[in-house]
Amino acid sequence: MAGQTALIVGVGDGLSASLARLLHQEGYDIVLAARNIAKIEALAKETNTTSIKCDAAKTEDVNALFSSLAGRLSVAIYNPSARQRGPITDLDPVAVKHAMEVTAYGAFLVGQAAAKMMLGQSAQNGVLGTILFTGASAGVKGFPHSAPFAMGKFAQRGLAQSMARELHPKGIHVGWINIDGGIRNPGRSEAPDNPDSMLDPDAIARSYLGLINQDRSAWSNELTLRPWVESF
Amino acid sequence: MAGQTALIVGVGDGLSASLARLLHQEGYDIVLAARNIAKIEALAKETNTTSIKCDAAKTEDVNALFSSLAGRLSVAIYNPSARQRGPITDLDPVAVKHAMEVTAYGAFLVGQAAAKMMLGQSAQNGVLGTILFTGASAGVKGFPHSAPFAMGKFAQRGLAQSMARELHPKGIHVGWINIDGGIRNPGRSEAPDNPDSMLDPDAIARSYLGLINQDRSAWSNELTLRPWVESF
Amino acid sequence: MAGQTALIVGVGDGLSASLARLLHQEGYDIVLAARNIAKIEALAKETNTTSIKCDAAKTEDVNALFSSLAGRLSVAIYNPSARQRGPITDLDPVAVKHAMEVTAYGAFLVGQAAAKMMLGQSAQNGVLGTILFTGASAGVKGFPHSAPFAMGKFAQRGLAQSMARELHPKGIHVGWINIDGGIRNPGRSEAPDNPDSMLDPDAIARSYLGLINQDRSAWSNELTLRPWVESF
Amino acid sequence: MAGQTALIVGVGDGLSASLARLLHQEGYDIVLAARNIAKIEALAKETNTTSIKCDAAKTEDVNALFSSLAGRLSVAIYNPSARQRGPITDLDPVAVKHAMEVTAYGAFLVGQAAAKMMLGQSAQNGVLGTILFTGASAGVKGFPHSAPFAMGKFAQRGLAQSMARELHPKGIHVGWINIDGGIRNPGRSEAPDNPDSMLDPDAIARSYLGLINQDRSAWSNELTLRPWVESF
Repeated sequence: MAGQTALIVGVGDGLSASLARLLHQEGYDIVLAARNIAKIEALAKETNTTSIKCDAAKTEDVNALFSSLAGRLSVAIYNPSARQRGPITDLDPVAVKHAMEVTAYGAFLVGQAAAKMMLGQSAQNGVLGTILFTGASAGVKGFPHSAPFAMGKFAQRGLAQSMARELHPKGIHVGWINIDGGIRNPGRSEAPDNPDSMLDPDAIARSYLGLINQDRSAWSNELTLRPWVESF
Repeated sequence: MAGQTALIVGVGDGLSASLARLLHQEGYDIVLAARNIAKIEALAKETNTTSIKCDAAKTEDVNALFSSLAGRLSVAIYNPSARQRGPITDLDPVAVKHAMEVTAYGAFLVGQAAAKMMLGQSAQNGVLGTILFTGASAGVKGFPHSAPFAMGKFAQRGLAQSMARELHPKGIHVGWINIDGGIRNPGRSEAPDNPDSMLDPDAIARSYLGLINQDRSAWSNELTLRPWVESF
Repeated sequence: MAGQTALIVGVGDGLSASLARLLHQEGYDIVLAARNIAKIEALAKETNTTSIKCDAAKTEDVNALFSSLAGRLSVAIYNPSARQRGPITDLDPVAVKHAMEVTAYGAFLVGQAAAKMMLGQSAQNGVLGTILFTGASAGVKGFPHSAPFAMGKFAQRGLAQSMARELHPKGIHVGWINIDGGIRNPGRSEAPDNPDSMLDPDAIARSYLGLINQDRSAWSNELTLRPWVESF
Repeated sequence: MAGQTALIVGVGDGLSASLARLLHQEGYDIVLAARNIAKIEALAKETNTTSIKCDAAKTEDVNALFSSLAGRLSVAIYNPSARQRGPITDLDPVAVKHAMEVTAYGAFLVGQAAAKMMLGQSAQNGVLGTILFTGASAGVKGFPHSAPFAMGKFAQRGLAQSMARELHPKGIHVGWINIDGGIRNPGRSEAPDNPDSMLDPDAIARSYLGLINQDRSAWSNELTLRPWVESF
């Protein structure tokens, strides 16, 4: 994996840390991009990671991020999302627009830039690279009192499907992962009598790696992950 | 239907004209809102319609539109959409943002304002009103070379689902209609040897009316309409 | 509608009665087929209906039924289903096989025979006939403790989709209707403080008629109906 | 994995062989069950496998199969299916019934028996066992001229969903895998100019193993696998 870069966008939670550690172990050079990189100093040191300040919903920030990348971009993962809860009549239109920009428009900017870069590089095992979007069940079912999250995650899923149908035949693997449940992020864990009612971020990261390592003759474009005790 | 208003947003095509004529026949007072109302002068005269200039993706325009409404808002229909075709790497980010704003954000603004108004009025046959969004198969399946349309229509569908789950139990019927095929708009018709390969806008309008007239004990929240010859 | 036959298979509930009454009003000649026709004597008299004893899961019964039909078969509606509830480990395999045969195999036999008959008759408004299957949310989502019903309704939905894709371009309209909730059948009604928590069979029948009357340029192949207060 | 049994039902193709080899490497004791075990003598010897004659659509055969199992049943995989192609009006009802019995009813019998056995054994890493069903895109979309395959695979998917919702909270992982494309079975391969247009059975098997090894805090209940060049 020498000279193989894995870009992880959005690092405010445990999933990004688990992804960084696992992909670092696998030999990838890790690049973390986030609006607030102060949060990730310790992780960056641990995983020998380059961290870059980036608001993924801004074209110029995304352009600067990709200009700074060295080596072969093997993996790009998009995690950011924004939500706002409340009755439809109480929602602030400004916050709704913001939610769509962070969750879906930023996914487009990063996905487009990653596709451009990957299309210009050589294949390995017949694959130019892997682009993964972290979704949610809100992208499959619009829940009440949660219109902005539904709008953002639905749009992101539509983007991922469109990209998969276009880019799979060109050798770029595109996946949308529905994280159906709460993630056991730092400082947040389930009650002792309800084990595994949250998703372990290390377990999620292993399934992401499974997608990255799939043979191109048997690719998945969507994957749902949920705790064994979660109803659905 | 005296004193019952039907609001139709977006009037650049044959569907809006068919809806205006049919709902006018049914006795509704018609209000047409569009960015370019010059296009609809003849129709407005024919259907005794109030036409209002409105960019549905702008909060202030939507607020002004709803402030001007008189009578009971029985029906609100949202038609506008924007698309941009091309390989993912060629898409203009500005146009992508625009597509999401016209197709999905405007739908939110109009849907929110309609819900606010309907929640404040009295029920008729147990129903406060009906809100319909004109969708497309792009909201169910993200097609290649069409990411912006997929993002907008997916987001719009997520919005409609979230609103239906919240508002049905309050007496507002919310529907998302997947128009799966081309509409036989003015100046656009199929080859004589391929009859009905486009959707007749009058036929679409009758199915919209069917949704409006559904008894609240048996509501549909999504409906797909496609020509008999369309593959799917 | 003179000389137009509407065949309704399965008459043990309020939906079939509502369909018979509404289609009789519309001028169709009604044929009711059921395993137990003693149940429907009064309805048959009221709607001037021919009633025929038929176990729809038996080839010879279905053949006899269709041999007896006179006039033009405009509409065929399939209602029967069987279910068995319980933990997967407690289910009786014989009952599971029975559930699949009543819900799905009978639907195939009736659907096949109706298609054969319709393909041999002349079109009216470009349409050879309409075939409708009464489904349930169990055909979209497999609920726990209800595997046999899920298996039958999923299979029935797969049949309806396959038939729609094949027969729509030939002029036969095929629909699968998801009845998502309990039907207010005779002797079964909701609590006074929970109005419309069951589907009114007359309201369902009106939506079936809406499908039958759709213009072929704008057909629906699936439709969900649920009470306004039903969560989904 | 000592003393851990992996049962594979249906062995007429390359997928079962790949599964047997991979799970044997992982240390499982392999049991292969099939109607025609003469086909698998070489494979059985190579993987030190017990082979058992079994028609999975017959209750008595399935009961005998499970009575003969020794050790802890960690994994049960169901592969058999039957299809029949043709216009709906040409299909033989006997063959339709047969297709449903092989594809769906046999899946029920094996799934039920596996669930019974697993519920009586102790957990390892919190998991009682894994039950996987090999599906197809015909279980998601009913294709024309293929009603029997649609009916069988839809029913099988409904079964798997019902079992997943019931059994996940009890510690049994249930998955339905949509194999969306042709499998590169023995004696069957793609044209040299169209590499990977079929799914490599070894690649499929690795994704099955990925499901088996998922942490229970992040389980998938459905997975689609398709070649990079397959349109969808």
